[in-house]
Amino acid sequence: MKLVVVGGDAAGMSAASQARKRLGPDDLEIVAFEKGHFTSYSACGIPYWIGGAVKERDALIARTPEAHRDAGILVHTRHEVTAIDLDRREVIARDLDGGGELREGFDHLVYATGAVPVTPDWARIDGGGVFGVQTLDDGTAIHAWLESDPKPRHAVVIGGGYVGVEMAEAMVQRGLAVTLLERSAQPMSTVDPDMGERVGEAIRGLGIEVRTDTHVQGLETRDGRVSAVVTPGGTLPADIVVLGLGVRPNTALAAESGIPVGVTGGLRTDLQMRVVGPSGHIDGLWAAGDCVQTVHRVSGQPVHMPLGTHANKQGRVAGINIGGGYATFPGVIGTAVTKVCELEVARTGLTEKEAAKAGFAYVTASVESTSRAGYYPGASSMVVKLIAERRTGLLLGAQIVGREEAAKRIDSLAIAVWNSMTVEEMTALDLSYAPPFSPVWDPVLIAARKATDAVHAAG
Amino acid sequence: MKLVVVGGDAAGMSAASQARKRLGPDDLEIVAFEKGHFTSYSACGIPYWIGGAVKERDALIARTPEAHRDAGILVHTRHEVTAIDLDRREVIARDLDGGGELREGFDHLVYATGAVPVTPDWARIDGGGVFGVQTLDDGTAIHAWLESDPKPRHAVVIGGGYVGVEMAEAMVQRGLAVTLLERSAQPMSTVDPDMGERVGEAIRGLGIEVRTDTHVQGLETRDGRVSAVVTPGGTLPADIVVLGLGVRPNTALAAESGIPVGVTGGLRTDLQMRVVGPSGHIDGLWAAGDCVQTVHRVSGQPVHMPLGTHANKQGRVAGINIGGGYATFPGVIGTAVTKVCELEVARTGLTEKEAAKAGFAYVTASVESTSRAGYYPGASSMVVKLIAERRTGLLLGAQIVGREEAAKRIDSLAIAVWNSMTVEEMTALDLSYAPPFSPVWDPVLIAARKATDAVHAAG
Repeated sequence: MKLVVVGGDAAGMSAASQARKRLGPDDLEIVAFEKGHFTSYSACGIPYWIGGAVKERDALIARTPEAHRDAGILVHTRHEVTAIDLDRREVIARDLDGGGELREGFDHLVYATGAVPVTPDWARIDGGGVFGVQTLDDGTAIHAWLESDPKPRHAVVIGGGYVGVEMAEAMVQRGLAVTLLERSAQPMSTVDPDMGERVGEAIRGLGIEVRTDTHVQGLETRDGRVSAVVTPGGTLPADIVVLGLGVRPNTALAAESGIPVGVTGGLRTDLQMRVVGPSGHIDGLWAAGDCVQTVHRVSGQPVHMPLGTHANKQGRVAGINIGGGYATFPGVIGTAVTKVCELEVARTGLTEKEAAKAGFAYVTASVESTSRAGYYPGASSMVVKLIAERRTGLLLGAQIVGREEAAKRIDSLAIAVWNSMTVEEMTALDLSYAPPFSPVWDPVLIAARKATDAVHAAG
Repeated sequence: MKLVVVGGDAAGMSAASQARKRLGPDDLEIVAFEKGHFTSYSACGIPYWIGGAVKERDALIARTPEAHRDAGILVHTRHEVTAIDLDRREVIARDLDGGGELREGFDHLVYATGAVPVTPDWARIDGGGVFGVQTLDDGTAIHAWLESDPKPRHAVVIGGGYVGVEMAEAMVQRGLAVTLLERSAQPMSTVDPDMGERVGEAIRGLGIEVRTDTHVQGLETRDGRVSAVVTPGGTLPADIVVLGLGVRPNTALAAESGIPVGVTGGLRTDLQMRVVGPSGHIDGLWAAGDCVQTVHRVSGQPVHMPLGTHANKQGRVAGINIGGGYATFPGVIGTAVTKVCELEVARTGLTEKEAAKAGFAYVTASVESTSRAGYYPGASSMVVKLIAERRTGLLLGAQIVGREEAAKRIDSLAIAVWNSMTVEEMTALDLSYAPPFSPVWDPVLIAARKATDAVHAAG
């Protein structure tokens, strides 16, 4: 039996590894194709390498192609799969360096091609210096560009989401003058405006110039390099432009191969990560990672949620099932976290906007409390916001902005969302308490109390 | 209508405050009696004040008697209630300073007398220097003793639980030579031996001499002060002795007044914190805090769990109900946390010993992982241990030992226990991930994966 994996990062190689764990080389041959130079790396770590907190690029690599080969998984890097023939059960892969072609039959195929940065037409310029941040090859190119001659001094980051903010901070750390452009009224629109405001302040506090309500009209180049970003508010000098406009599922190959794509643009799968078409799942065809769509367990809607944590889980689930075991991936609830300087920003479930869009009537409650007992040294302020369904009090979402020990509290709230707890039920939760770790009423519990009052008041 | 509160710390004053919030002085008169000098303080903060991390004793006081009076709650400090007449609905309180007696009728009574340190006969000596650590008056006495002349140099702490370990560290911080005596094979027996071992190492690392498997035979005195602790292994010099042998519910007054006491020695209550007797709840009689017993939601057994966090919640629930609202306290799951130097120790649910005692067949899984992505600066090691029911995989308990950002992860596990999650279901949890906050597989998820394997392997 043969397994072909298309895409050699988190999802694909997790699937390969789990299948290998269950079936030895005599029972399952595994061949993986990866377009880039690297396998099994942490794309989320790229900003920290660019910024200097992580010293060596290779620290981001969890497992090299060689290590996979030693584990009985044949990896072809710099090979791009150009066709999948579902009838003949065969893929064609092009050798991007050597120029030849490989044909490989399969019994099982894992489609794990990831996502590609959203790249507007204006960003497709005839010159260097414009980068997405999706693969380690992207990161390597950015790193090299920042070291190139003439050394970039002005950076413009377009888009104030996680990647944009993390990259903006990284380039400040490298000594560049950084401008962050954001289409909406404030950066970090993955949290509600009242919380995003605090993030905006922190970003400005780093010395980053933040221009909101700004759309980009075009780029200018000089000597084959990007030189400026044109906006209605003026032309900004730019020796490097980073795109943080989000990503879309990399499913062009799937579409060309007759593999159906879902409403979000990602592949649809069932719980076992089998690709689903109009008449049920397609035998032997699996997908995982940033190229799939999944279900949001709170809204019930299909969503594209490209995060390494889901990619790893989905790949693992696919691999276990391919290997003859049983595992499922039951969807996501929108948990995410980041850090801006010392400010920690976290969310789970639905934001207000998302809750309204899903059709929920809701109430909110925000509380400001401290990370430790107020009298304990180092206690720092944090804001916890809860969004609860009107009447039922069901916890729909939560957001936290704070400093040390703030963000990981989102996991407690994520598990409460996951289990469909009501905010009233949450007031009784037996959470840990000692003065170095929380006030006697943990901020999460205080927020639950206030949200309970809000639910009662709304009737 | 009149509410009398017996005991003016967390539970009693939370009840008073919540009732006051709902009913004004015209509808409800509130009188509280407190034996000591202080109200509404953090007893858990005492070791940090003794150790010097908290500079002022009064920082531990959340609300003074005067502040309560300003809020319309009449507090008599240094008044000990000596009798409760349930038929006449009247209490008698003795003025510990003035010597007089007060009689006070009531419609509602909240019994919130807390707990008293377990004090063996050998600890009742004719001389000073032996202390429990239960009230702020205790803390004040310890603080004064440590400043007294001749200045204590040798401390012996008897009992290696939370209070013992925290006080031992506090006295090291004050420059005393500290010996910790523990009856069992290692300190911190609230976690399993494999986890407790790491705590023991940390305690020794502070320069504390730890003697395990040691019971105390008696104390010696000189000039009216304790001078030594006698053990089978030798006589230890001691200028101060701290008792950390646990506490028992302070229910002597209840028993004398014909209020029934439960199997753990604490008062039994229903969900609303109404005291329960043989024929149902007793009208107008409420109890909360360290003097009550509650139910462990995992074992289903009655337990005495004297913690400030429960006391606050129970008091709040009683007060809401007295005030005409509706709230419940549905029990505990044994969550607790402490810090020894930089080592964070946390638990929730049942330990192995407790699980076995409750009748569970179980499997365990321990994993060592890191607080952040392995490549991110400051990543430190942590051990997560899960205990899951055999066959069902129900999460019965969890323990964490680690450094920064370790302990608060217990809250995630507590909410998983609370919601009767299985370890297999937990492997899919959408927990937050970013390199500064966790590896892509959070330690909690890695532990859930390993525990799932253990459940499958055990069959």
